[in-house]
Amino acid sequence: MADPLKDSLTGAEALVATLADNGVTACFANPGTSEMHLVTALDGEPRIRSVLCLFEGVATGAADGYARVSGTPAMTLLHLGAGYLNAGANIHNAGRANTPMINVIGDHAVPHLQYDAPLTSDIAGLAGPNSLWLKSADKVEETGALASEAYAASFGPKPGPVSLLLPADSAWLEGGVKGDVVQAPSLNQVSETDIKAAAEAIAKASNPVIIINGTALSEPGLQAAARLKTAGVRILTDTFYAKMRRGAGVFAPERMQYFAEGAMADLEGSDLMILAGTSAPVAFFSYPGKPSLLVPEGCDVLELGDASTDSAQSLTALADEMDASEAAPVESLIEPDAPSGDLTAQSVGQSLARHMPENALVSDDGVSNGLLSYLPTQNARAHDWMMLTGGAIGQGMPLALGASLAAPDRKVICLSGDGAGMYTNQALWSMAREGADVTTIVFVNHSYRILNIELYRTGAGNPGPTAKNMLSIGGPDIDWVQLSTSMGVPAVEATTAEEFDAALADAIAAPGPRLIAAVVPG
Amino acid sequence: MADPLKDSLTGAEALVATLADNGVTACFANPGTSEMHLVTALDGEPRIRSVLCLFEGVATGAADGYARVSGTPAMTLLHLGAGYLNAGANIHNAGRANTPMINVIGDHAVPHLQYDAPLTSDIAGLAGPNSLWLKSADKVEETGALASEAYAASFGPKPGPVSLLLPADSAWLEGGVKGDVVQAPSLNQVSETDIKAAAEAIAKASNPVIIINGTALSEPGLQAAARLKTAGVRILTDTFYAKMRRGAGVFAPERMQYFAEGAMADLEGSDLMILAGTSAPVAFFSYPGKPSLLVPEGCDVLELGDASTDSAQSLTALADEMDASEAAPVESLIEPDAPSGDLTAQSVGQSLARHMPENALVSDDGVSNGLLSYLPTQNARAHDWMMLTGGAIGQGMPLALGASLAAPDRKVICLSGDGAGMYTNQALWSMAREGADVTTIVFVNHSYRILNIELYRTGAGNPGPTAKNMLSIGGPDIDWVQLSTSMGVPAVEATTAEEFDAALADAIAAPGPRLIAAVVPG
Repeated sequence: MADPLKDSLTGAEALVATLADNGVTACFANPGTSEMHLVTALDGEPRIRSVLCLFEGVATGAADGYARVSGTPAMTLLHLGAGYLNAGANIHNAGRANTPMINVIGDHAVPHLQYDAPLTSDIAGLAGPNSLWLKSADKVEETGALASEAYAASFGPKPGPVSLLLPADSAWLEGGVKGDVVQAPSLNQVSETDIKAAAEAIAKASNPVIIINGTALSEPGLQAAARLKTAGVRILTDTFYAKMRRGAGVFAPERMQYFAEGAMADLEGSDLMILAGTSAPVAFFSYPGKPSLLVPEGCDVLELGDASTDSAQSLTALADEMDASEAAPVESLIEPDAPSGDLTAQSVGQSLARHMPENALVSDDGVSNGLLSYLPTQNARAHDWMMLTGGAIGQGMPLALGASLAAPDRKVICLSGDGAGMYTNQALWSMAREGADVTTIVFVNHSYRILNIELYRTGAGNPGPTAKNMLSIGGPDIDWVQLSTSMGVPAVEATTAEEFDAALADAIAAPGPRLIAAVVPG
Repeated sequence: MADPLKDSLTGAEALVATLADNGVTACFANPGTSEMHLVTALDGEPRIRSVLCLFEGVATGAADGYARVSGTPAMTLLHLGAGYLNAGANIHNAGRANTPMINVIGDHAVPHLQYDAPLTSDIAGLAGPNSLWLKSADKVEETGALASEAYAASFGPKPGPVSLLLPADSAWLEGGVKGDVVQAPSLNQVSETDIKAAAEAIAKASNPVIIINGTALSEPGLQAAARLKTAGVRILTDTFYAKMRRGAGVFAPERMQYFAEGAMADLEGSDLMILAGTSAPVAFFSYPGKPSLLVPEGCDVLELGDASTDSAQSLTALADEMDASEAAPVESLIEPDAPSGDLTAQSVGQSLARHMPENALVSDDGVSNGLLSYLPTQNARAHDWMMLTGGAIGQGMPLALGASLAAPDRKVICLSGDGAGMYTNQALWSMAREGADVTTIVFVNHSYRILNIELYRTGAGNPGPTAKNMLSIGGPDIDWVQLSTSMGVPAVEATTAEEFDAALADAIAAPGPRLIAAVVPG
């Protein structure tokens, strides 16, 4: 809070106080000289927890995780255009997860910009493409009002990252005015007409399928989905989603396959595809001679709202309209036996199913090992699973950090590929500093394994030594135990299923960050 | 080289062969699925050394170092918009260093773009602000011609990074056509009229100063500067420059101070400022109540060409015009005594002056410790000093990697702050894989020390616990020895000047990468 003895707020103080008034409780920061007044404004604001990140991509990944769990956008503090660029890949990912996020980007003082000092760049140009909303607070008296506007804009109705540029003079000058506490826009609701039309289409179809995402993946949404399932509708989630409730006591929908040919084979015969909280499924990448759009020929597509829509409400209304009263069964709790032998992604999943406590949060950036760990946890204790939705690997550990700070009483499990983890390994340091209760599992195969698969799928030919080198991250092998302990996170390596199972039990029992280097086949 | 038995080149093969024909010899890469055909094209091109980087900012920092030393742009291989964003801060830095660089950015196949798959982004929008030139090779038959165009465009005449977008179908389709071997544009030459005008202005001035950068910092440029100095002209370099020859046998100009108030005090009394290879000096950041432009009142400014100009030629022509035949003395070789006692940036500099071999390359991202290490090396064996010019820290280790691969017979010394080093620590892994002959010195003070200074200079007030936490990177302290060895680079810690001196002698004697964690006061 600003110093009560002072007559006036600085622009930075007005901005920070406005965000706090609106319910923002965390700032993930990597400041520079132009943000010093923001730093001292945060210093005086006890309602916002300021978390230093040693690389900006950690800050935005953490803000994403924080908002996915708390429902409230976090603020980030970024240092000019260069800071925005470092932050950018996880802003892209947050956009694809429809996560609200308020990126506050420091800039030079307005009169300084004309001189093109070394750190000057076209921040609005750089940040524009991945910002739902972007404005620059070029006058000190605007900082509060624009903070309110940024907060509301981040909720959409299709939520996402917004950019608020703060020139240094607007931060340091007095004359700041707090902005209003604003009502954030809610998700859209589907009209009764559209619900009736969907029910009628389903009644006429032989093989209807609903692809669901967004709030449909919450417990109420999945309950409605279970009713629709009993009424004869196939329920599929997108391959990647921001967060889903799963495990014992929860209805488990099917998940669309990642590889396009698998998804297409799987959807074959569907004559009606309803989209609830998502858009028509497309191949993640393009491949020579393969289709992009994953809708079978002759299948009607009916849109029941995209990511700007409250899809849980859509499904509930649809189930009501269809008088679908009986729900398909929920998953029961099954604790698998302790796995033994070679350590694989599947045995990792088995151990997770054994040891994950009730209400755990999972951050999945496991790339080629993610799915095999995912499947065995379907009957674990109830939990939330969060995924990389934007395809820019290096999100898992930052997301886990932010999720943990949003819910300090929940255990967070992070699954990361070794290639993915290297992008943002600095997240480990912030986990250690903040005492984040995160168990990170790194799948160590010394390889961009997914690319070894994709090399063949794209028909790019037989890899020679150079190509093999570009897809291998061995030679030298990274020692993840050393890497983790160098940043203050205790770590162990596991090379067998038994070792991993014991290490996971230990890590989950211990509060605070831990890392397990899970050596799996390459 | 493309398979001679094949009738036709793929677009990727045509692109890669064209760059190789034009003299590009290195590609710093972080590929994804959409770049698989580029990977196999590189596989078949023995003239280009492909270097995997585990984070894209390492790739572009290395490309910058490669070009600063070799004079030839390197190619980078980046994965869509997200890869560009990760690469972006060191592209910004390369732009500010006027380094030619060819960023090849993979994109989805053109027909796939309309479906807005998860990794789709407005790459042209993101990359535009920091690209001298940007085109997308949307047709396979264009890839070679656009590669030629990109190569030439990277030379300017003001050199810098260019962006060539390569949709996956343009890469995989056959029908690629190699582009021409092109003549890269040269730097501009200043006209005789401008030289005469400068000579006349100097003759009339009482306290003329020339601010130099660019090719003026080469040995011939500095020779001309030494002649001008004897003729009564003060010679100052910019605070930060891409590369300068210095040490024994070389004329040492003064260097402009970083802090604006120091620079202004120092320039006081100058009545003529000539700019050669640079633009008028400005404060790096803006501060309340302080000027941005560092030109004393009443001082005339005369532009003798900016970064697009061959400033070595300008200085030589000016010295000739002024009949300045006698050159100021060059530096003599002084080997300091072994330092003792507490380890400081200054004693690090002393040890460098003792042990740096002839013709070493220094990559300086030492932030608050850079200058104190710089000064004692003025009388070391002749070497080239390279600096961070764009202000986005995290360039030092990548730059050293690229410099070393461009000149494998020269020892590279990298000076990095610990905060700076954390941004792109993945560079260590590529140094280990490539056997790069780099000795990295990390100044370990567990602090963003420069920001502790800037907090006071900006008048942002007394730091409370939150602010202190935002400027400290201790708690936990990073163990740089572990971090380095985790990625395959042998490392030691030095806590006294004696320890450091011995460690440096060892590291320099050993070929290949080494790291010294130099614990200095915070």
